[in-house]
Formats: sequence, structure tokens, C-alpha cells
Amino acid sequence: MQTKLPQDTFIVMSELVLPNDTNTLGNLMGGRLMHWMDIAAAIASQKHCNCPVVTASVDNVSFAQPIKLGNLLTIEAKLTRSFNTSMEVYLRVWGEDLSAQYKYLSNEAYMTFVALDPHGRPRKVPELIPETESEQKMYDGALRRRQLRLILGGKMKAEDAGELRALFIKE
Amino acid sequence: MQTKLPQDTFIVMSELVLPNDTNTLGNLMGGRLMHWMDIAAAIASQKHCNCPVVTASVDNVSFAQPIKLGNLLTIEAKLTRSFNTSMEVYLRVWGEDLSAQYKYLSNEAYMTFVALDPHGRPRKVPELIPETESEQKMYDGALRRRQLRLILGGKMKAEDAGELRALFIKE
Amino acid sequence: MQTKLPQDTFIVMSELVLPNDTNTLGNLMGGRLMHWMDIAAAIASQKHCNCPVVTASVDNVSFAQPIKLGNLLTIEAKLTRSFNTSMEVYLRVWGEDLSAQYKYLSNEAYMTFVALDPHGRPRKVPELIPETESEQKMYDGALRRRQLRLILGGKMKAEDAGELRALFIKE
Amino acid sequence: MQTKLPQDTFIVMSELVLPNDTNTLGNLMGGRLMHWMDIAAAIASQKHCNCPVVTASVDNVSFAQPIKLGNLLTIEAKLTRSFNTSMEVYLRVWGEDLSAQYKYLSNEAYMTFVALDPHGRPRKVPELIPETESEQKMYDGALRRRQLRLILGGKMKAEDAGELRALFIKE
Amino acid sequence: MQTKLPQDTFIVMSELVLPNDTNTLGNLMGGRLMHWMDIAAAIASQKHCNCPVVTASVDNVSFAQPIKLGNLLTIEAKLTRSFNTSMEVYLRVWGEDLSAQYKYLSNEAYMTFVALDPHGRPRKVPELIPETESEQKMYDGALRRRQLRLILGGKMKAEDAGELRALFIKE
Amino acid sequence: MQTKLPQDTFIVMSELVLPNDTNTLGNLMGGRLMHWMDIAAAIASQKHCNCPVVTASVDNVSFAQPIKLGNLLTIEAKLTRSFNTSMEVYLRVWGEDLSAQYKYLSNEAYMTFVALDPHGRPRKVPELIPETESEQKMYDGALRRRQLRLILGGKMKAEDAGELRALFIKE
Repeated sequence: MQTKLPQDTFIVMSELVLPNDTNTLGNLMGGRLMHWMDIAAAIASQKHCNCPVVTASVDNVSFAQPIKLGNLLTIEAKLTRSFNTSMEVYLRVWGEDLSAQYKYLSNEAYMTFVALDPHGRPRKVPELIPETESEQKMYDGALRRRQLRLILGGKMKAEDAGELRALFIKE
Repeated sequence: MQTKLPQDTFIVMSELVLPNDTNTLGNLMGGRLMHWMDIAAAIASQKHCNCPVVTASVDNVSFAQPIKLGNLLTIEAKLTRSFNTSMEVYLRVWGEDLSAQYKYLSNEAYMTFVALDPHGRPRKVPELIPETESEQKMYDGALRRRQLRLILGGKMKAEDAGELRALFIKE
Repeated sequence: MQTKLPQDTFIVMSELVLPNDTNTLGNLMGGRLMHWMDIAAAIASQKHCNCPVVTASVDNVSFAQPIKLGNLLTIEAKLTRSFNTSMEVYLRVWGEDLSAQYKYLSNEAYMTFVALDPHGRPRKVPELIPETESEQKMYDGALRRRQLRLILGGKMKAEDAGELRALFIKE
Repeated sequence: MQTKLPQDTFIVMSELVLPNDTNTLGNLMGGRLMHWMDIAAAIASQKHCNCPVVTASVDNVSFAQPIKLGNLLTIEAKLTRSFNTSMEVYLRVWGEDLSAQYKYLSNEAYMTFVALDPHGRPRKVPELIPETESEQKMYDGALRRRQLRLILGGKMKAEDAGELRALFIKE
Repeated sequence: MQTKLPQDTFIVMSELVLPNDTNTLGNLMGGRLMHWMDIAAAIASQKHCNCPVVTASVDNVSFAQPIKLGNLLTIEAKLTRSFNTSMEVYLRVWGEDLSAQYKYLSNEAYMTFVALDPHGRPRKVPELIPETESEQKMYDGALRRRQLRLILGGKMKAEDAGELRALFIKE
Repeated sequence: MQTKLPQDTFIVMSELVLPNDTNTLGNLMGGRLMHWMDIAAAIASQKHCNCPVVTASVDNVSFAQPIKLGNLLTIEAKLTRSFNTSMEVYLRVWGEDLSAQYKYLSNEAYMTFVALDPHGRPRKVPELIPETESEQKMYDGALRRRQLRLILGGKMKAEDAGELRALFIKE
């Protein structure tokens, strides 16, 4: 199975925020944004494993700045690390008021996808080899984020999460 | 400002999973589900504060069981705790194959919303008073989840998160 | 074949009225509302027969109060009576302005669904046993409404509709 | 105020039945069809009164033949009679399998709309003058259907509905 | 294979322009209009060949007058000529402000469709026989437009396009 | 008014082809594709003029290869030349079967947009300066394509279109 590079999985999605995407204050609804982010991340995952995928989890997402009606939405997605049958994707989302020439970071997120065989069962995915320094950093952090997911999902005890524990105890 | 009970904010949403909501394997796309969850949680928040709201954050969500095309989707949302200008909502999502009479828990999640005044600025929300034992437990856990959000959002240092720290250090 | 209770078929649907659902005066379009009501009633029917269903008829519906953009829409649906292969569903629809804390009944309706076997042909459905007084009243009225449907559909002569005739002739 | 002819209000709508419009058996959902019928009838009403309109009521509708995925849907709508501030519209709906060259009547319906002034209050509409024999027959029947609507809506007593009573009592 | 007349393929589509169809100035987006035109033209083609079709090309389209939110959109489509396996459709689009009683031509277009057999390969279509003078003129022009398509698509040399050349050289 | 480079206007859009976007053969409908292309081109235009825009025309488009359900759609758009108040955009569209690792060019197109002031009237746009050789070639061809648009729209006589005439007469 051939290894891949993060840039092989890179994907850009552009959307205009339309009336039905917004609440009564003219702000993009958080759930509509997550819908688009999920599609972008699914594409990045499929570019890595070349097979169908299913969303396994979404990490904590904070919505710092609301995105306005009529603004341009840009989502960038790229794999950070592949595990046995799962892949972690890092996403960044910008809003942009093209008339005012004002572009702003809206939020960042990590999503995890599982690769599926034709019967819908998890299947092995290729290894991802980080190239740049920032990709290496993302790659290293993926293990810590994975431990947090397992703890929050009740599948790991906090005291066994060595990588994550270091965050809380400065020894 | 009048206090409220969790049950005042309780909301049930039912949807049928249609073709455009699913991927090529006939599973509900994770992002479409989060779109519905966001609307359900926004309604629960609006029932509490009686004003417009905006999604502030979504906590880690794991998708345990895929929901199938044609299945019934049920989302229940209820406030767990209100802070100064924000509200935490707890959601549970079920899928149900009505022909097979098989109902299954798909996932649980916590979302946080901020109440807005007519100028789009955060405004104070009523206090929430838990009634039942499980509501009290949710209420207590809200503080710990809030600390985790602040740490993950880079707004709090891990060593200052007293409540959360206890999870990692059995002293 | 197991009998069922009306409450086994009870379903609540909640929706926010979005821009594309409304006309140029900001009122929910009647047809969009009937679309949602049809889905809610189909779910109630499927909970009763545990098989695919198809809309057979919609009784007279009056739209008393328009539902406004941004309002919460709540639809409740419950079976009133099952016939050989068909089921009558009673629906109530409310609008609610969550900021103004004003909830209003929009309309009521009866819809009839036919249960289908895997080849798309009508199939027998379980018996429905009313429990409460109001369920019994709904159950009794179902026969009269059925006669009216058959007359209006040209499948029964008015003079043969004994139950219905009593409405017009006080003997 | 200028009188109008039924043909001035005539409208044809054509739609292809797409996947999201159908249930799991590939039949057009009844509610989706009523959504389209409502839009067609609203257009016919607006052609008559040249002002915004709102759906007031939908008469009993029976769905005789399911319309299939990929079929052509044709809706014809035309005013039958105008009252003081309301208009009755008659609709006919056909399905058509273009490959099999098979066209079938799906259903007929009557819908009533109210004309609105810019403040959203009912306003007077022009008189409708029937031309053909079938238009005259529709025009005459409109009074009887109106009485039925008022009785079913609880706004008229059955014994006062002279026109309608004749249906039930062959004197 | 039976010949057909242009009027056998005639189709009218009516739509109301809703919020999500418009840009921030309240004008119907060009792409949304082309989406509807494509469906109308596909129906006209299917009425001719009675089989599935696929869009082969769209000729130059100019959008003369923007169509406004809330306006009625009317699309008329009719075949002009059939070739071996393809069909040319002529479309006219009107906008109409029903309150202001103002109807305006928005644009005209020619689209070409290819008929497909059940395996998705091109198949022969019936001959189209023009009846009226304007249909004959459309029929004659179809050859010239076809040459232009082939040149613009790089499949014909300009000097071989006899019919079209006459446009540029008044000899 | 500041000049701009073609790369300042470059935009990538990625979409997954969902069931409702396809016809009964599972091919992306031509009109749905043009809808997405129009949005991509509108974004490229807005990046150039930083103001609202409206679609003025779409040049001949040929659909060479159908794009399949579940495939990834990629649209790239970039300005080729700006005129007084209008801008020409060049688009390329690819389909991609991510499982089969097969990417194919679907079609190319030119669209023209007009920049609008806040009153909806045409306004002057910045000059576009081509950088690369291929951008220069696109820039030069824009004049010839503009003449063809004017002739096809009936706003220029063929014999006055000097640039275009050369295509037909090898002198």
C-alpha cells in the first residue's frame, strides 16, 4: 500500500452564504457550516484512502466570528495523520466580505473519518508521511487529540493517556 | 429575570432521512446530522432566553452507529446550565428503522449558544434551576466541560482548570 | 397481529421557518407546511404499521393564522383509527414566536395513509384501540369523515352515508 | 375594478420528480406534490388579483395514482370563482412516463386563497366571469364547496347550507 | 420510427423566484435560471425521443433583463430540429411582476441534447417536421448554429462551415 | 483604481455530486453544473471588482464527459480580461472518481459578468494585467469572443467584427 503526503489530500471549497443558510440576524448557522466542513473533510479523506468514508468524530469547535450573508466562505482541509483504519483531518474556515475586502478566520477544527470496504466495514488506509515542519507538528499532536477523544468517548481512562496528561501536570 | 427549568427548554425534532442526506453507502452524512442538531439546540436555547442566539461551540461528538436512508431520526435537546450570557445544551440522537422496529442511540453531544440583543451583542440569560437528579448531575458537569472548552480554545491554562484536573490526577 | 394504542403512534416535529419557506410577506407558504405535515403523518402511520406507507388523502385544511419567518413550527401527529389497509392521522400545528413568548394554533388536519407490502400493494394494518375519552371521540368521528371522503371522491352516494347524513338532517 | 376571465388566470407548471421528492418506494411524496400545487394555485390567484395572496384552505384531496421517480409532473391551475376577498382555484395534476409514453391523471383539488393589501389585510378582488360551459359549472359548484368549507371549519351550521343540503336529501 | 411535430414537444414551466434563488441585490442568479432552463429543455427532448437524454451543449446566452425576487418566471421550450442522435431545443424566458402587471422577455437560448439507450450510449431519434413558417425558419437556422458549435468546440474548421461563412462574407 | 492580476481572481470550488443533482442515469444534470459554474465565476468577478455582479452572458458550452453520482466535482475560475464595466471569466471543470483514482476534464467555458454600483447600475472595474504566456493568450482571445457575443446577440454586424472575421477568411 502506497504512502501519501498531506498535500495529496489538500482540498479547497468555496461557497457563497445564501439566505437559507442564515438565521434571522443574517449570520451563517453553525450547523450549516459544519455540514460543509464535513463534506470538505470527507473529500480530503477519500483522496487519501480512495474509498468510501464515514464521519467518526468531530473535535471541539469554537465559532469565533460569525460569517455574514453574502460573504464568501472558504474551507481548507488536509490530512494530519492516518491511523489503522481512520484518518484525522484538519480544517480551517474563513469568511470574506469581497466588497469590503475584509477576510477573517472563522474557526479551525479536527474531524476523524473511518475508511470503509464495499461491505461497509472498516478497512486499512495508507500511511501518511508529513513533509513540512507544521505538518510534522500536526502529526505529533494527532496522538494527543486521539487520547482526548477516547477519554471523552469513555473508551480510555484519563490516567492511561500519557501524552494528554502532560497538558495538565507540569512535572 | 425569571428563572427557568430544564423541561421548559425541552424539544423533540423528528426527521426522515432522504436520499440527499446520505452518502453513496446510504448512511446519513455526519454534517447533515450536525446541521439538524444545531437547529434543535438553537430552539432549546431560544426557549430559555427568548431572544436570538448564535452557536458558540460544539463539544466532541462521536458517531457510534450510522443512521440509514429511510430511517426516522429523533433528536432531543434540553438545557443543562446557563452561564452569564451563554447556555449549554445536551442532545441525544436516535435512529429508528420503523419497518424492523429497531431503535438505536446514534450519538450524544453538548453545544453552547450565546444569547444576543437586537444589536447582535451578547446579553444576560435567565438562571436555569435543575430539578431531577440527572439534571443536577448534568448541571454540575457543565462547569468541567466549560473548562475543557476554554483550554481547547486556548483561553485557559490547563493548570488553572481545577475541576477538570481531577479527571487526570487521582489524588 | 398485535393491536396498538394511539400513543404508540404519537410524533412531534419541530422546525424553524427559514427564508425559502416563506412568501414575499414573510408568511410560511401553505404548501411548505403541508409538506411537513405529510412527513409527520407518514411517520405516525409507519409507527403503527411498521411498513412503507403512501398518502391516500388529505381532508379539508383551513389556515387560520399565518406562521411567520423565524418562528418555531410544532407539528403533533397521532393515529385516530385504523381501517383494513388504511390509517387516519390527526395533526395539530402551532406557530411560536420565541422572543415574544407567543404561541398560537395554526391549523388542524386529518390525513389518510395506506400501508404497502414490499411489492407496493395495500396490506393489512394492526387494529388501533383508543384509550382516553378524546381518543374515543376521534375514533368514532373517523367513520363520519371516511364517508365524507368517499362521497367527495365520488365513491359513495350521499344518501348511503348514514353517519354523515345526521350532520345535515336533524331528525 | 376590471372583471377577468378564467383563462386570464390559467397556469401550467412542469416538474421532473427527483430522488429527494420520493419515498423509499420511489413514489412522489404527497406533501411535496401539495407544495407544488400550492405554488401553482398561488400564481393563478396572483394573476387574478395582482397582489400578494395567502393560502386560506385546501379541500379534500385524494391521491389516486402514485407518481413515480423520473416522471414528468404537470399541474394546471385556473380560477373557478372569486368571492369578496377570496378566490377558489381548481387544479389538475398528471404524471407522465415519457419513455413509456404513458400519461395518467393523478388527482384534482380545490384551493382557496385570500388577497392581501400591503399591510397584510384582506382586500377586494376583481369579479371573475365564466365563459365556457365547464367554467360555468365550476362557478356554480363553488358556492356549494364554500358552504362545505364553512361547515367543516365550524363557521356555518349544516342546516343553513342550503346548496350543500341538496346533496344529502333528494327531496 | 414515427415523425413528430414541434408542438408535440412544447413545454411550459412556471416558477416563483424565491430568496435562495437570488443574489444580494434580489436578482435571480444566472446559474439558477440555467438550471431551470436545462430541465425544461430536457423535458422537451424527452417528449420527442421518449428516452433518457443528456445535455450536450448550451449556445451563447445573454441575460438582458434581471428577474426579480418574488416575480413569476415562465420558460417555454420547443424542439427546432432533430439530427441523427441529437436534438436542438429553443427556449424563451419571461419574468413577470404580477402585482405591477409587467411582463418582460428575459432571454432566449438554444440547447442541444443527445438521446441515450439503456446502456447510456447515443441512440437514433425520430425526425422532426416543422409546420409553421417560424418553425421552418428555426429548422433552417439549426444547421448554421450546429456548424458554429462544431467550430467553437474545435471539431470543424471555419472554412468548411459553408452556411455559417455566409454570415461573415457578403459575396 | 488599482490594477489586478489574473491570479488575484483565481478560485477553486469542490462539490460532491449528490442524488438530487443527477438524472435517472446517475449523471450530473447540465443545468446543475452551470448553476455551480455561475457561482464560481461570480466569486472570481467579485474578487476583481469588489462589488456585486450580475451574469451578462454564457458562451457556448459543450459537455464532453458526463460526471457521475458520488464523484468529486472541481471548478477552477479565473478572469481573462476586464472591459469597461464587464469581466470575462474562464472556467475549467473536472470530474473525479476518487475510488478509481480517475480524473477527467468535463468542460471549459467563458462567462461574462457586469459590475454593479449600489443602485444596480453598471460601474467601472479595475484593469486586469496578464502575467503568464497563457494568460496573455486568453487576454488576446477575449476580444474575438466579445465580437462573437455581440454578433450572436444582434448588437454587431458580422462584417464589422474584424478579429472574428479572420477565423472564417484565410486571406
